Amino acid sequence: MRLLITGGAGFIGARLARTLLAREGDGRLDGRRIEQIVLADQATAPADLLADARVQGRVGKLHEHAHGLRDEEFDGIFHLASAVSGECEADFDLGMSSNLDSTRALLDALRHRQQKGARPTRLVFSSSIAVFGPDPAYPFPPLVGDDTLPTPQTSYGAQKHICEHLIADYTRKGFIDGRAARLVTVTVRPGRPNGAASSFFSGIIREPLAGEEALLPVDASVAHAMASPQSMVDGLVKVYEASREAFVGRSALNMPGLNVTVQQMLDALEKVAGPKVRALVKPQRDERIAGIVANWPRGVTARRAGALGIRAESNFEDIIRQYIADNEGHPTALKGLRELGGRR
Amino acid sequence: MRLLITGGAGFIGARLARTLLAREGDGRLDGRRIEQIVLADQATAPADLLADARVQGRVGKLHEHAHGLRDEEFDGIFHLASAVSGECEADFDLGMSSNLDSTRALLDALRHRQQKGARPTRLVFSSSIAVFGPDPAYPFPPLVGDDTLPTPQTSYGAQKHICEHLIADYTRKGFIDGRAARLVTVTVRPGRPNGAASSFFSGIIREPLAGEEALLPVDASVAHAMASPQSMVDGLVKVYEASREAFVGRSALNMPGLNVTVQQMLDALEKVAGPKVRALVKPQRDERIAGIVANWPRGVTARRAGALGIRAESNFEDIIRQYIADNEGHPTALKGLRELGGRR
Repeated sequence: MRLLITGGAGFIGARLARTLLAREGDGRLDGRRIEQIVLADQATAPADLLADARVQGRVGKLHEHAHGLRDEEFDGIFHLASAVSGECEADFDLGMSSNLDSTRALLDALRHRQQKGARPTRLVFSSSIAVFGPDPAYPFPPLVGDDTLPTPQTSYGAQKHICEHLIADYTRKGFIDGRAARLVTVTVRPGRPNGAASSFFSGIIREPLAGEEALLPVDASVAHAMASPQSMVDGLVKVYEASREAFVGRSALNMPGLNVTVQQMLDALEKVAGPKVRALVKPQRDERIAGIVANWPRGVTARRAGALGIRAESNFEDIIRQYIADNEGHPTALKGLRELGGRR
Repeated sequence: MRLLITGGAGFIGARLARTLLAREGDGRLDGRRIEQIVLADQATAPADLLADARVQGRVGKLHEHAHGLRDEEFDGIFHLASAVSGECEADFDLGMSSNLDSTRALLDALRHRQQKGARPTRLVFSSSIAVFGPDPAYPFPPLVGDDTLPTPQTSYGAQKHICEHLIADYTRKGFIDGRAARLVTVTVRPGRPNGAASSFFSGIIREPLAGEEALLPVDASVAHAMASPQSMVDGLVKVYEASREAFVGRSALNMPGLNVTVQQMLDALEKVAGPKVRALVKPQRDERIAGIVANWPRGVTARRAGALGIRAESNFEDIIRQYIADNEGHPTALKGLRELGGRR
């Protein structure tokens, strides 16, 4: 089978590709052998993936590619490409173009193929729990569920939610076989802090493990839903493999998360890496970030994903241990753990 | 003030224009005198409206007009233009273009003006309770409320709901001052039966009053939310005049409807027009129509609109009487009532 991963050079996209290429030994999805994976992204895909003969990298903007997809057959698509929340808030046109117009161009290419007689292409879309925001007319439930009314409070969230509805309707019409899944915050992200308000959720684990200080901009009582990159990738694969009947309907579903407080994250860090590493996290309240985060849900429920067998971690230590395992060979990522770590 | 009504030659648009031009004596909205109303529509506006010096008709497709609106100042817009449900289901591209792309072109023209320094234009958007549909994952509540999760089951409903979210986000960003209101089924529509599944809701009143037989394709126990054209117009005006604080948030609200069964409609017809007129309604079940209607909500609640003082009729007789009053001068519309009518 041939697969397309948009955003395939990114953090989740590349991990998904690696997982698929090794799955069930020789690289299988939905019981079929994967002949080719095309990684479409604005950035070049990682070298280890491009070295695999089954991988083709394709660099450029999605809506420049999309028209060409009318004449190209894919069995399945993971549509992960997206401008991120901060970008969309700063540059409205960029968000509309990258997140809405690109998705529609992709859907229209698939519809064109279906109308020429091809089977509806299976498509998994990575939406986000950013579709949920507090609305003065509708108080937030403590945990947002599949059936919570989305009232997005960012352009990113609005665009993701609009795409969910496009995908549901293109699926209802039989143009595609689409499934939208709302990802929770993925931790621990590698790399450097970025401008995102959620950046500290990874930073307070990643920086101490590297032996660097990390500032904590919110109260330790703040709660949030998180999942490891691997649980998110495994979940996307399960969404792909689900039958239409098992998916139930065409509405987007929530992916599960571990609902934790910052305090529980710090306790887990101390348990995994010891008190000296934990002590590198310094509280320094940032009112701007604290204000943004106060508007986020304190956690999720994911009844429909649960019924598909999709699970997040059940404790934050496992999420930290996944990051440590991923970075065993990295020169500096675990410097703090090696030099200050009490136990593992 | 200058106003634009898209779909201004239509059934609701023209009535809205007439109402506004006569309001508070010399034609006022939000306390200001109306200098001009532009009626934009694919059809020519009614002659009585075009005869008013304050009215300008503009014939053509909205998305051909929209770019020009960048250089034209309107204080307020009622955006009613829309392809209808049946058209959108039959011609997917038409629906996407007429209902989604046109709205976005309009919003972008208004955004362009705002970014050049103009005040955000106030915009009332006529959405529809067609945003609600039964989803296997989410059983329908008996009555759909402002906070019911929309899971549209038609392209029309999906497009309307997507526009609600665009309007909410353009409003959040300060580009416009937008308010989306979901209209219930408007009865009694004038004219002939059309292909819409809801056509009979008007037909079973309109045809007997004209002395013609009407077929009833569903059980008399079917329930639905309805409002008269005038209550809908009055509601749109109240949505326009509401302060942002009174509107509460930026999410779309339900317009109120009278939740009635077909039996109650027929009883009201008998009460207003007598048993001989009522007897012109002949049950003849149509499985296709009955199946479609079975998927519709049995009624609405409209808490937020209620708080703005928006009301539908409290009994169906008043809805029938409005239609009779509207058609007093019509040569044939009330022929049945005149010849067979028992009492009024």
